[in-house]
Amino acid sequence: MPGIHEECGVLGIYRKDLGPVAEACYLGLCALQHRGQESCGIAVNEDGLFRVHQDAGLVSEVMNHRVLDALGKGNIAVGHVRYGTDQTRGRADMQPTVIEHRKGRLALANNGSLTNYMALREDFESKGFLFHTTGDAEIISCVITRERLTSPSIEQAVLKAMNYLQGSFTFVLMSPRKLIAVRGPSGFRPLCYGRADDGSFVVASESCALTTLGITEIIDIKPGEMVMFDEKGVHHNTSQMGKKKPSICVFEYIYFARPDSVLDGVSVHAARAAAGEYLAKEHPVEADIVIGVPDSGIDGAIGYARAARINYGMGFVKNKYIGRTFINPGEWRKASVHIKLSPVSAVVKDKRVVLVDDSIVRGTTSELIVGMLKKAGAKEVHLRITAPPFMNPCYYGTDIKSKDSLIACRMSQEEIRKKIGADSLGFLSLEAVRKIAAPIPESHFCSACFDGKYPTDIPDTMERDRYSKRLVRVGENV
Amino acid sequence: MPGIHEECGVLGIYRKDLGPVAEACYLGLCALQHRGQESCGIAVNEDGLFRVHQDAGLVSEVMNHRVLDALGKGNIAVGHVRYGTDQTRGRADMQPTVIEHRKGRLALANNGSLTNYMALREDFESKGFLFHTTGDAEIISCVITRERLTSPSIEQAVLKAMNYLQGSFTFVLMSPRKLIAVRGPSGFRPLCYGRADDGSFVVASESCALTTLGITEIIDIKPGEMVMFDEKGVHHNTSQMGKKKPSICVFEYIYFARPDSVLDGVSVHAARAAAGEYLAKEHPVEADIVIGVPDSGIDGAIGYARAARINYGMGFVKNKYIGRTFINPGEWRKASVHIKLSPVSAVVKDKRVVLVDDSIVRGTTSELIVGMLKKAGAKEVHLRITAPPFMNPCYYGTDIKSKDSLIACRMSQEEIRKKIGADSLGFLSLEAVRKIAAPIPESHFCSACFDGKYPTDIPDTMERDRYSKRLVRVGENV
Amino acid sequence: MPGIHEECGVLGIYRKDLGPVAEACYLGLCALQHRGQESCGIAVNEDGLFRVHQDAGLVSEVMNHRVLDALGKGNIAVGHVRYGTDQTRGRADMQPTVIEHRKGRLALANNGSLTNYMALREDFESKGFLFHTTGDAEIISCVITRERLTSPSIEQAVLKAMNYLQGSFTFVLMSPRKLIAVRGPSGFRPLCYGRADDGSFVVASESCALTTLGITEIIDIKPGEMVMFDEKGVHHNTSQMGKKKPSICVFEYIYFARPDSVLDGVSVHAARAAAGEYLAKEHPVEADIVIGVPDSGIDGAIGYARAARINYGMGFVKNKYIGRTFINPGEWRKASVHIKLSPVSAVVKDKRVVLVDDSIVRGTTSELIVGMLKKAGAKEVHLRITAPPFMNPCYYGTDIKSKDSLIACRMSQEEIRKKIGADSLGFLSLEAVRKIAAPIPESHFCSACFDGKYPTDIPDTMERDRYSKRLVRVGENV
Amino acid sequence: MPGIHEECGVLGIYRKDLGPVAEACYLGLCALQHRGQESCGIAVNEDGLFRVHQDAGLVSEVMNHRVLDALGKGNIAVGHVRYGTDQTRGRADMQPTVIEHRKGRLALANNGSLTNYMALREDFESKGFLFHTTGDAEIISCVITRERLTSPSIEQAVLKAMNYLQGSFTFVLMSPRKLIAVRGPSGFRPLCYGRADDGSFVVASESCALTTLGITEIIDIKPGEMVMFDEKGVHHNTSQMGKKKPSICVFEYIYFARPDSVLDGVSVHAARAAAGEYLAKEHPVEADIVIGVPDSGIDGAIGYARAARINYGMGFVKNKYIGRTFINPGEWRKASVHIKLSPVSAVVKDKRVVLVDDSIVRGTTSELIVGMLKKAGAKEVHLRITAPPFMNPCYYGTDIKSKDSLIACRMSQEEIRKKIGADSLGFLSLEAVRKIAAPIPESHFCSACFDGKYPTDIPDTMERDRYSKRLVRVGENV
Repeated sequence: MPGIHEECGVLGIYRKDLGPVAEACYLGLCALQHRGQESCGIAVNEDGLFRVHQDAGLVSEVMNHRVLDALGKGNIAVGHVRYGTDQTRGRADMQPTVIEHRKGRLALANNGSLTNYMALREDFESKGFLFHTTGDAEIISCVITRERLTSPSIEQAVLKAMNYLQGSFTFVLMSPRKLIAVRGPSGFRPLCYGRADDGSFVVASESCALTTLGITEIIDIKPGEMVMFDEKGVHHNTSQMGKKKPSICVFEYIYFARPDSVLDGVSVHAARAAAGEYLAKEHPVEADIVIGVPDSGIDGAIGYARAARINYGMGFVKNKYIGRTFINPGEWRKASVHIKLSPVSAVVKDKRVVLVDDSIVRGTTSELIVGMLKKAGAKEVHLRITAPPFMNPCYYGTDIKSKDSLIACRMSQEEIRKKIGADSLGFLSLEAVRKIAAPIPESHFCSACFDGKYPTDIPDTMERDRYSKRLVRVGENV
Repeated sequence: MPGIHEECGVLGIYRKDLGPVAEACYLGLCALQHRGQESCGIAVNEDGLFRVHQDAGLVSEVMNHRVLDALGKGNIAVGHVRYGTDQTRGRADMQPTVIEHRKGRLALANNGSLTNYMALREDFESKGFLFHTTGDAEIISCVITRERLTSPSIEQAVLKAMNYLQGSFTFVLMSPRKLIAVRGPSGFRPLCYGRADDGSFVVASESCALTTLGITEIIDIKPGEMVMFDEKGVHHNTSQMGKKKPSICVFEYIYFARPDSVLDGVSVHAARAAAGEYLAKEHPVEADIVIGVPDSGIDGAIGYARAARINYGMGFVKNKYIGRTFINPGEWRKASVHIKLSPVSAVVKDKRVVLVDDSIVRGTTSELIVGMLKKAGAKEVHLRITAPPFMNPCYYGTDIKSKDSLIACRMSQEEIRKKIGADSLGFLSLEAVRKIAAPIPESHFCSACFDGKYPTDIPDTMERDRYSKRLVRVGENV
Repeated sequence: MPGIHEECGVLGIYRKDLGPVAEACYLGLCALQHRGQESCGIAVNEDGLFRVHQDAGLVSEVMNHRVLDALGKGNIAVGHVRYGTDQTRGRADMQPTVIEHRKGRLALANNGSLTNYMALREDFESKGFLFHTTGDAEIISCVITRERLTSPSIEQAVLKAMNYLQGSFTFVLMSPRKLIAVRGPSGFRPLCYGRADDGSFVVASESCALTTLGITEIIDIKPGEMVMFDEKGVHHNTSQMGKKKPSICVFEYIYFARPDSVLDGVSVHAARAAAGEYLAKEHPVEADIVIGVPDSGIDGAIGYARAARINYGMGFVKNKYIGRTFINPGEWRKASVHIKLSPVSAVVKDKRVVLVDDSIVRGTTSELIVGMLKKAGAKEVHLRITAPPFMNPCYYGTDIKSKDSLIACRMSQEEIRKKIGADSLGFLSLEAVRKIAAPIPESHFCSACFDGKYPTDIPDTMERDRYSKRLVRVGENV
Repeated sequence: MPGIHEECGVLGIYRKDLGPVAEACYLGLCALQHRGQESCGIAVNEDGLFRVHQDAGLVSEVMNHRVLDALGKGNIAVGHVRYGTDQTRGRADMQPTVIEHRKGRLALANNGSLTNYMALREDFESKGFLFHTTGDAEIISCVITRERLTSPSIEQAVLKAMNYLQGSFTFVLMSPRKLIAVRGPSGFRPLCYGRADDGSFVVASESCALTTLGITEIIDIKPGEMVMFDEKGVHHNTSQMGKKKPSICVFEYIYFARPDSVLDGVSVHAARAAAGEYLAKEHPVEADIVIGVPDSGIDGAIGYARAARINYGMGFVKNKYIGRTFINPGEWRKASVHIKLSPVSAVVKDKRVVLVDDSIVRGTTSELIVGMLKKAGAKEVHLRITAPPFMNPCYYGTDIKSKDSLIACRMSQEEIRKKIGADSLGFLSLEAVRKIAAPIPESHFCSACFDGKYPTDIPDTMERDRYSKRLVRVGENV
């Protein structure tokens, strides 16, 4: 799904003795790569000495063997992957943020978006503070550092700091001797932890990073909860819990998270399959085959097929060698669509096809895909979307920017269907979308991007955008 | 399926005027990348001037923008992708082979393996010839060059040369003014062509490269057929057809080719799904869900599920960002399995699972995958293979080397099942495998790797191996 | 001269309209590369929008075409090169420092070393400030930002800030609309500016950067002077001048600066040649030829030869293709000396040779070079050093760290001579070294590294070192 | 001196047991880098197994640690550096040429240019041979391979092959068990060998490669001589000596070779200094200082100064960090001259300057340099060239292509002087140039580029150029 992007994934590791925490962090971040492909970073803590590396690029590109060797052994580590739309951002706001303050140093990796960023920053600036980035991680570090001056411990400083942070935030932080994981009270973004066979504790945005490290028992960190890891073990602090109504981002289930992850106890794959099942009930159609747009429509298609009792088929082959390759296609422009995705003619030829995808942003990709199927011989193409139409921008860490770029704000569903060239078009209903991740109560979800009901005050993003556009850090790949 | 590899993919382009043939070749080779990932090359012909670039690596790595610019416009091009097991080979035997001879120059890209390579080479060496490579492409070039001395045209030389070549060969060749495509009379490897919207003719190992370039009408080149493209158009020569019995490699349908390709008129996906259906009949089992090993077992799983009337499910998530990343995992060794492939617990937990894959070579990967499913909660795992067991080496361009490395030569099926940890194990029968690509007659297939019935004389490979091990060209990535 | 390193070079450009300031900055920094080879950076100001790129490596490596294109057009730019001993530092403390504060943003590039860094940092930290680096540039930015809150303009803030900075500092700073150049009141490091043909003003550490840009008229910025460039022109502020006695680093003339530079009105080459002449008078010897160690001993050798009326000769060939190549020489260890520097046997064979160099730090290189000459047939080798022996660490921006690493603190001159294997050894006297850059008054120089007379309070460097070793930013080349 | 280029440097190593021959080859090629910067290659022989790596780029770029590791231990190695003008050649004709033939395999690295290349190639092509390159090394390999069929040993085949080779050739060749070094009977290019401390024999184009490896005793290989190294020791064969009159290239002394090399017993530095001395006698002038254009004019300037009893000075500083950096200077075009070479104003201001260089090809560089000196304040600039004017192309391995590009063929000396802007201009005479390398007899030199007296038949180069332009191998850096 081009056009919408999750901002980040975070990871933290704690062990009592020195060990290969950089390698574990590397492996875990690889499993979180789908949450952000623009830049990544790892900070390793070897008994108080911090080593850090960050750069633009995929984890497997940035963290080569020499870098992992240079990061060395450690007892704590935090890591981060950052999202990948705006190519001009390059190296700006790379995380983890690593800073020194009066009482030590800390490295912090955050996933989310503060709604009171501007107010906090102006307050600090009026006291003479200067800023190296336009990112939340730096401002959160400032608040924690300020509270640390009058707190007996870093964890007390973090708890106090939470009172000043509004909107969406979910971070891991390491001090010279502790690893702290915080999920903001609204709980927009997921966070969980577990214990590896070697005794390491691992915190991550999604359970898939933990299972990759062989961890089977996953403990969800609840909205508002702080978990601290130190030499004495694991410490849960729930004093900030319940200060806000939970507002879990439903789009984590629909699109962001990996299908094998289990978030707040609910399988992402199962939620998507359920979305497909609801869709089959809400938008039934006579058809011969159900196929999904790889990879994000596959789970929904399987659910649709099962509920509709229509055969499921493999409608497309994805070229697994292409990666982020760009080619200026010139006269071969049309080919550049096919190079990444190719229809399986034997599956769709002379068939009435139900095509399942997870969203329509601008509609251009859907148009190309429907066209491809028709050219491959599909008799009819019925497009089914496992979410309601996007109607509103997101202020909680998702790159759904302005109404202008959302097709559903400008066109009726019939106009969209015509533009895309589908024979019919059906979106999942608002009611259904809140049920796909049952047994999580329907009221615990944020679905503001669909219905405009924001669970917090809305920031003046224009002003913040102005900030982030004044300073550009040119990246490696420029 | 680790352990077995196709040797090559070939591509050729002809157009009357100068145009972006390098770009088209690049796109087409990207679509053939699954046939070889070790090295690749493109040779462009601009009215008789040849420009060539080859290197170790994926097409999208080797052929960057600067290289494509340097290759320039042309009216003919040939390209090649080469297989990727033996990491020590590096830059050895890269293709296309580009040479100059008395009557001009030629570039040749071949897919196959001659059974009389040694005899041909010894004959040439005894006349004072020297060799830069140990590849078939150079020896085929020698034979053609020799015949060209006494032939009125390059195409006549090629036809005469075919009489001296034995075993498996399928090549595209460009001279200063012509593009020639040859499929050896046994037809082990596929070859087809079509005409693009801009009038270019494109020849490729598989139809997926043609559809990528927007070509809808695919013409199969038949075993023994030569097709020549020049300014007058397309010329089919069938004088060498019928000299051998067709021996189409059945493993192209089972594993090598891409599911969206159509070879000799038969859809690869359909053949794989048919294999799954036969398997369901030959090895039925009570189960709750059918899943496939990504990506090669998916098609067969869909077929099995349909025939067995069991639900099809998405059992694994593949990490699409990992590519060929290598990490020396040390203490995190177990994680390195999970990093590329992760089971979807919600799908398999407490289920009786049918797991479909396309082959078992050494058995180690199957063992890991079955273990992963059990750890994710699968109650039973019934492994079904969409091919018979490998029992014999292949001499026709496939990397099935020696009996020693084939598990089925050393263990009974029950021993294999135990080693892998599956609750039951079933292979497709020899009878069924010859039927999966109907309506191609059963007699037209080579299945020597399963039944040992070689359609040609068998070469003394030991001797040839000695050749190729005397000279190592160190590659970029060493 | 291995073992001693200048910390930095700075550059600033101001023009009224948008133009190729990044390119000019690139060219100027290339001319300053000898002042620092570890990392470099350029910040471009396009009417208030800042774009910046920094990385470990040479200017010509880091600033490729794509980076310069991405930096774009601008009306102001600042650039920096950083020194290159401590390979573990990697990307730490890269400059220019680019930050945002209440009243805008600024980019600052500094050459020097504050003696009150620790006191300033502790003061800021006690107010809750956090630090991203351990460099002077960040702390100077903090002081300026603090003063800016209560100053009507950036230049007033800079002037006030100068009152809080002690030790060595020389910086260029750009705000959205101004370029400001400051040379600290002690004037340890040089700074000058000039006007290019296209009307741009260029500020640089050394005149060689200005002449590279075609500027012929060089204006030295005096110790304590601030020069500000804005749309109204050039503004000299001398209000901070004379607050300290000038303490120009004499080692700039002996080693750091490029021979074609003219610093405070005195040619570096002429000063070095004068050093050679004084040396000829202080340490005469009967000899057949005078040669210099390339490149830093050549100027002194020419002066010695002229004063002693002995022939000057080209004693060594330097391999110009080697660069910073490293090879683990193993059994060929001895060759790795020769690979960079090779004696010209025809010049030294059977000759009594005077060998001129600019310093002896650990003595190991001198030993190798004298040995090379003897092996090439030199009858006698008389080593002459164009400076007194190093006896004391430098706290003003030079990498002369501790007494332990200085051979002259541990050995008598006769012991050094024996170790090196020279037939005689002579150092320039303390009296003479203060005269080589006449007509600058002898009293205006700092020669603390030779005589221990520090012109300022000495900081507790142990403490600062502790800071910079707690946080390591792993570089590209690790 | 831009515009004229030596084609190659060769190196060979023989030792009885396995050892670090790749490393030694690397170090030796680094010392020969001035003879060719376009591409390089090393082939290592480990008891008959050949490993080879070649690529476009400097030795220190192409031969990194991983490559040297992959080349491994060996008992024999040959290496090559290739010249660097024609950027479009890229990877074409890289050496060593490594081939297999009936009786084994060989690797061959050559320096020179055959005058009967076309005749040889046509003969082979008429017998059906095909060619991968347009280089002499491949055709020499063909001749040797042909002779090997009827010779009892590789050395006998080489000796017989010499009868068929005309023009300039100087090569090292390794077979599975022997290293053979051949200097063609005319002896255009130099070749020598010596024995390292570890017992290895090393053959190289110039002695500087041997001294780099610690070898002090240098043995020149004479024109027409073949030296063979095997387990029994060193074997000199002189049977081909005296078949041609020696025609040593005088430009090796003037420009190509490194000053610290000793060729055929004569120091290159001494020959250049002698050229300067002759020049002082032939073209005296009243002046205050003599300076040389770095690096090639320095030796001559020292000679001129000494003979004319005028002070020698350091007129320029070369930027040692720039390397082969290219920048499209746009508005800063003029700066790009200064970036590599900068005049030392203190040396030339208000002075009458004698400027010594080794040649004028197109005159553009001389014009820029003279202009730089005048701008830096020189009162007069008297240009002196340590060679006669180029009037004729070279057919023996030097890149002096056509009369069109030689300024001396189109302008009188007075016209050249005016164009360059010098106050006077003097070239070394034809008589003197033959004396600079005394005691080598004057008659033993080829000076055809100056006087047009070619010692061999002249080939039809047009035809050969046609060959090499039909096939382009695109390089790494394109």
